[in-house]
Parts: sequence; structure tokens; C-alpha cells
Amino acid sequence: MEKLKRLGGQTVEFTSFPTVIGYAAVVGPKEAEGPLGKWFTETEEDPMLGQESWEKAESALFAKAVNSCLKKSKLTPESVNFIVAGDLLNQCTASSFGLRDLGVPYLGIYGACSTMAEGLSVSAMLVDGGYAGHVIATAGSHFCSAEKQYRFPLEYGGQRPPGAQWTVTGCGAVSLGYGGNIKITHATTGRIADMGVKDANNMGAAMAPAFVSTLLAHFQDTGKTPKDYDLIVSGDLGSIGHALAVELLKKEGVTLGDNYKDCGMLIFDSQTQDTHAGGSGCGCSASVLCGYLLPQMETKKINRLLFVATGALLSPTTTLQGESIPSIAHAVSFETL
Amino acid sequence: MEKLKRLGGQTVEFTSFPTVIGYAAVVGPKEAEGPLGKWFTETEEDPMLGQESWEKAESALFAKAVNSCLKKSKLTPESVNFIVAGDLLNQCTASSFGLRDLGVPYLGIYGACSTMAEGLSVSAMLVDGGYAGHVIATAGSHFCSAEKQYRFPLEYGGQRPPGAQWTVTGCGAVSLGYGGNIKITHATTGRIADMGVKDANNMGAAMAPAFVSTLLAHFQDTGKTPKDYDLIVSGDLGSIGHALAVELLKKEGVTLGDNYKDCGMLIFDSQTQDTHAGGSGCGCSASVLCGYLLPQMETKKINRLLFVATGALLSPTTTLQGESIPSIAHAVSFETL
Repeated sequence: MEKLKRLGGQTVEFTSFPTVIGYAAVVGPKEAEGPLGKWFTETEEDPMLGQESWEKAESALFAKAVNSCLKKSKLTPESVNFIVAGDLLNQCTASSFGLRDLGVPYLGIYGACSTMAEGLSVSAMLVDGGYAGHVIATAGSHFCSAEKQYRFPLEYGGQRPPGAQWTVTGCGAVSLGYGGNIKITHATTGRIADMGVKDANNMGAAMAPAFVSTLLAHFQDTGKTPKDYDLIVSGDLGSIGHALAVELLKKEGVTLGDNYKDCGMLIFDSQTQDTHAGGSGCGCSASVLCGYLLPQMETKKINRLLFVATGALLSPTTTLQGESIPSIAHAVSFETL
Repeated sequence: MEKLKRLGGQTVEFTSFPTVIGYAAVVGPKEAEGPLGKWFTETEEDPMLGQESWEKAESALFAKAVNSCLKKSKLTPESVNFIVAGDLLNQCTASSFGLRDLGVPYLGIYGACSTMAEGLSVSAMLVDGGYAGHVIATAGSHFCSAEKQYRFPLEYGGQRPPGAQWTVTGCGAVSLGYGGNIKITHATTGRIADMGVKDANNMGAAMAPAFVSTLLAHFQDTGKTPKDYDLIVSGDLGSIGHALAVELLKKEGVTLGDNYKDCGMLIFDSQTQDTHAGGSGCGCSASVLCGYLLPQMETKKINRLLFVATGALLSPTTTLQGESIPSIAHAVSFETL
């Protein structure tokens, strides 16, 4: 039995510091037109990616992002010991079908829009624990397949309430191993939080308590405060969830300042892009991390980042059956070397 | 950087030997009437478990199995550092809704019917790596929610072709830590295999190549042969997949004898229970492992077990879009102390 590598509570402390080797973010045309457009590794002009269905287009996003990540990491599939992947489609088929030809031992995960942080946490433990030389974590989503599955077919032209968010068409992939210049120092795994919110068009409100719960656990376990980070990002709370999170944390005695941002608010300009409360989907935090945040850590414009992806664990069936929306958030702490 | 704890290929070798602390299997009435009926920890007379929908009944199975496992393990939720859980429902809601009040840091996984082996592999690495004192792995399924989601509503009375399998109503949960008398020695993580099978009513044929691929990798990586195990079990290949797997392995020079069984063939009597090719679903291998196999390891009737759960990664959407069925299998090796 080895010495436990955990702090109290929900946080694992990495002793060997697994690092980021490479990363890539592939996004669709709307994301390319947004405020972060110039940052993404690849942008697709055709939201169908030349495929015959939205679901196949989403799978193609995964294949492109992972291949681009492998290339940037100077890795072959044979040298990767695990890929940890997930998405929003029923039975997680976007990731499994998109990556079925890769030949890398495969761990499918589901954390709704928290998937990228869950994948990074598990991957960092697999590297730090000595179970892998290299692991890839990846997550993605597609606006059109998500609308079709969760809401209405696009052709129906349904109106979106102001609290609604816009699922990001995008996929991010990160490879972890040793020798990079961005290390992962901690991972805080979330507990499921359910405050009884039932409005599936206001997921920011449903997810904010999960973000608050994980953030408080992270600070309590590590002894850190918001000032210890250059940037704290939530995954896709959007403008409503962001404001709610700030308020809830203030009640707990934690003041978040200008260093707290939300990936869903960064990726779109809601004024000009008609995205209401902001971006969402597994691909939201994954593309913002891999397209915008990690590149800025590489150039040391950001040196200490807390990445907290948030997920609403609902399904269309649970909503129809009158259930509330359980949510979860996982935090991963990055530092430049 | 620590020394790698892996053999070549796809297999992790545990150096500190995480052990099974406790386990429980809760199943429905049809499973209770089957050949293993007397073995299960708890059997439910009412397939609705007193709930108002099949989905909520499936969630109730998870809550019962995990609580029973905690009790048998003499653990409180506060002393469990992670729960690794998954199921077949869209967005994995059976497990997340069933376990939302538990308060244990939550890692959602999706491996279709391979979920129990994926969860055990990840859990064993989390314990062995020092990230957790105790972890629970759990997986389950429900016949009625699966029929409704994947095939037809029960009320429709659709006929089932002979190759079809019967989704098990059941949930298994295992707690891992140190101090038990059954150790986990190896985990072999599967690659996705897709041989082009498109018949969603013959999943045994779709999954057999994944089982063969993972079994060959396990033997090659560890230097073991089938004779090194008292029992090798596949998850839910059923009678068609079982026969196919034996044939495919023979072509590769590996002869499986009487020590090779399939959980889907063990759990039902297909002659009298009208289950065609056998049981399936995440709950099939999970309940057979936690209800029947681990108790026999505890009494040393089985001392060396290779548990290879198999999963078909399809969805109703991918089948309607003419896709073939990618499959995966993960192997976990147990030994008594």
C-alpha cells in the first residue's frame, strides 16, 4: 500500500506533476466568427464536415481534434496508452464512433459538459500513477446534433428563451505525459449537487451550485484562495450561472474578482451572435481550454489556471418525467513550469 | 516520474494489489427465478421497485446495490473517495440520478455492457496509485427501460429474433481498498473493434471480436494462458457470441476449455426462460460478478478469475443511420489471497 496522494476531502495532489504535451481545438464556423476565433487550432467552414448527418459530423470533429493533438504532441497512436473520451450524444457515440479506428485503449466517460475536466483528472492520475506514459483526454459537442437530441430539429425553427445557451460545435483534445512546460498540480472531483432546478432552458442556474460546491472544496482542501490563480474559469455556466455563482460564493465568504471568467461567455459575443446566455456543451470548455487557455499558458500570459468544467446530468426523458437537474463540476489546477 | 506499472501493450500490473472489500448484487424477479437466483444479495419481486417509471426503477436499483455494498463493506459514504458508475440509459441517468444523494465524488463512465470491467479497472488504478483509500465501482441495467429505449415499448409486444438477448434487470457494486482477501492483479484495457456487423439483434457476433482482441492482448502482455485461470468469463456474448469467440480464438491458436463461461449464459435458463441467446446489459456481468463469482472466490471455490466484460457501443440513432457496431472489452484479473 502506497502513501495516499490526496489532501483531505475531494482533492488529489500530484506529486510527480504530469504535464501537458500537446493540445488541439477544432471548432465550427460560428465559433470561428466569435471573439476567440483566431485562437483555435482548426476551424471548419462546413458544420457538416462533409458528412451525411450531424452525428457523423460530430464524430469527424473528434477524429480531427485527436489527430491534430497527436501531431502537435509528436506522438503516434501506438505511443498513447489510454484515450479518455466522452460527449453528449446518447450512448456517447460521437466519441466512440469518431475514435473507433484509432486503436488506442479506450476509456469512455460521461460527465455531460464537465467531461473535459473529468477526463483530465482521470488522465493525470493515470500518468502520475505510472499506468501510462501518455494519455489523451478529449471531449466535444455539436450544436445541431444537440438541438436535435435535446430540444427540437433545427428545421422546426423553435424559439429559444433568453436563459437558453448555445451548444458549441467543437472538440478539444489534450495529451498528458512528462516533459511539457505546463504541469497539473491538483484535481478536485465533484459531488453531484441538485438544488431542485427543473428548467432545462436555464442550465446555468442548475449548474452554479455544483461549481460553488467544487470550488469551495478545492479551496478548503488546498488552502488556496481565488488570489492564488491568475484565472479561474467555469465551463459553461453562461451569464446567468456566472452571476449566480458569484453571488452564492459571496454568501460563503469567497469573493471572486475579475480573474473569474466563464468559457460559455468567452466563446461567443452574445450581443451580436444571438447566443443568449452563452455557449454550452462538452465542446465549450474543451475548445476554450485547448484553443485559447493552454496557448496562453505556453507563452506565460497565464501562469496559474483553475479549470472547473460544469455538467448538467439531465436527459430529455428525466425532464419529461418531471425530475430536477442534478449537476456536477470537476476542477483541475494547471501551473506553468 | 515514477516507474511505469504497465506490462507491454494494453495491460497494467498492480504492484500493491488493491483488494475487494465488499460487494452486492440486486436483481429483478426474472433473474431471481434463474439458475443463479439463490446467489444474489437482494432480489426484488416488483420490477418497478415501487417507482413510477422504469427509468426511476433502474435508478432505485443503483441506490439499493450501492447501499448494500457499503453495508457489507462496513463503509460510510464519507469514507469512499470516488464512485465510478455507469449504465445504458441516454446520458447515463440511471446511475447519476440513483446516486445523486450519496455525496461521494463521482466519476461517470460509459462502456455499454463493458462498464463494470471499465469501472473496476479505473477503481483499481485509483486505489493502487494512492488516490483513494476506498472506491466503489458500479454498473446496472433494467430490461424494461432498455427495451423502451433501444427497441420497442413493452406494450407493443414486438417479437424478438432468436439471436436477440435479454437485458438483465440488475445492478452490481464492488468496493475496493486494502485488507480484503481477493486481490486484483491486472487490468487489460480494450481497444475498440468493429468488424462491420450491423445487426443490432445479434450483439454477441458484434462483440465477440472485441472479447478475442482483449483476451489475446491479456495473454500476450502477461505471458499467461487459459490454464492459468480457474474461470474466464465474458460479460454478455450469449450463446452465439460464446461459440463465435471459441472459434475465433482457436484460429489464433488459443483453445478455451470448460473453464470459459459467459455471464449472459449463466444468469438465465434460455430453454425455460425464453431469453433466446442469453442475458445482456451492464447489469448482466455486474450482477453475475457481484452475486455469484465473488462469493465463490471468498470461499475459495474459485481462486483465479479473469472477468472480461464486453460492450456494444451502438445507439438506436447509429443503427438507423446504417452504421456497424463498434465493440469493446476490458479484462480484470482477480486472485484469492
